[in-house]
Amino acid sequence: MEKKISKAVISRLPRYYRYLSDLMEENVDRISSNDLAKRMRVTASQIRQDLNIFGGFGQQGYGYNVAYLQGEIGKLLGVNRQNNVIIVGAGHLGQALANYQNFSKRGFVVQALFDIDPAVIGRTIHGAPVYSLDYLEEYVSKNRVDIATLTIPRDNAVEVARLLVKNGIKAIWNFAHTDLQVDDSVIVENVHLSESLMQLSYRILAAKEEKAHKEERAELRKRNTEKGRGERTVS
Amino acid sequence: MEKKISKAVISRLPRYYRYLSDLMEENVDRISSNDLAKRMRVTASQIRQDLNIFGGFGQQGYGYNVAYLQGEIGKLLGVNRQNNVIIVGAGHLGQALANYQNFSKRGFVVQALFDIDPAVIGRTIHGAPVYSLDYLEEYVSKNRVDIATLTIPRDNAVEVARLLVKNGIKAIWNFAHTDLQVDDSVIVENVHLSESLMQLSYRILAAKEEKAHKEERAELRKRNTEKGRGERTVS
Repeated sequence: MEKKISKAVISRLPRYYRYLSDLMEENVDRISSNDLAKRMRVTASQIRQDLNIFGGFGQQGYGYNVAYLQGEIGKLLGVNRQNNVIIVGAGHLGQALANYQNFSKRGFVVQALFDIDPAVIGRTIHGAPVYSLDYLEEYVSKNRVDIATLTIPRDNAVEVARLLVKNGIKAIWNFAHTDLQVDDSVIVENVHLSESLMQLSYRILAAKEEKAHKEERAELRKRNTEKGRGERTVS
Repeated sequence: MEKKISKAVISRLPRYYRYLSDLMEENVDRISSNDLAKRMRVTASQIRQDLNIFGGFGQQGYGYNVAYLQGEIGKLLGVNRQNNVIIVGAGHLGQALANYQNFSKRGFVVQALFDIDPAVIGRTIHGAPVYSLDYLEEYVSKNRVDIATLTIPRDNAVEVARLLVKNGIKAIWNFAHTDLQVDDSVIVENVHLSESLMQLSYRILAAKEEKAHKEERAELRKRNTEKGRGERTVS
């Protein structure tokens, strides 16, 4: 694992992990790069290249050992070891994340939520207590927190992020629609839902335009052909 | 707008749109590429290159017209024109999305939600009714729906996606943790939260390893220096 793994490969590892986990649930022990490629809709050579970085996982003509490969990728992704997670913002999105079974199954355990709303403070969500935001600083300084999730409005996000970092938080999963201004040593993973939705909207527009262009060109070709015929008749 | 815009640039446009919208709220009329670069923490040359694709937005030594640029990018992203959105799955995540003010502000209007849970069917969320999933097919065939959002468990997602596509849906915003098996002409934008969390976890581990390596190397250097001194004393 000493080799530097490229960002592109890393971004694809969770997807491999998902497909390999599915195969395990289907009791598949081994899979060839060709079969895996078909399932994942990528090329077999991409798979061989990506998984080659681990060295020696696949065996020529024999396929990959599914459980072993899933385990190794899981280790690399930090799945299986417990990650203590807190969620700052116990609104709909925060509660959705706290309730997400998949996370705890993969070692991401929500230990506490924080909010300013008296209506949710004191409640328990999927086993985790909701505390007042006032208690955040004390909680973080006293407990091991691996990941702080921000599901609060953007206006407060920058300030809360600073408070978290001041108290030793090293990784932030940020759903607030802003770029946190924190030290480069802090790892920030952004999920900007608005931006994802805009990308989708862009692609819808672009597809519509392309369709319109195609129809226009087809219409033009048709007219030119008719015109050509007309001219032939005259001459 | 006839030029093909690269995928990389497109992926950056929503972020430009966000920063330009912020500037408008701050009543900033013009901004130089250098100032925008500082705010966005990217290079000025990247900004000039990205925005150059629109042609003639910036003026040398004069800066970008913020409102104009925001408007043009917004048009390109399909913001401002109304997109009718439905949400299939009115659980926590579906409700979080339905309640997200930012979406409707940008023209993405949630018209209806669908669920199988009698506890939510018949309710209204942020003005949108929650219907039974049984009504989905009829609703989609009778109403203009631009974007169908899937916030249901992965087991049902593939089947629901097929139903939607069969009834004319051309764009799916997919939060279900699976790859939808739909025709290539259907636009699918995936938000795989588990995968984002695993990326974060990978980066935490990688940072820890790098730190450990650094400390090891420093320790080794220290020992070698001491050893070197020791040998000199002996000789």
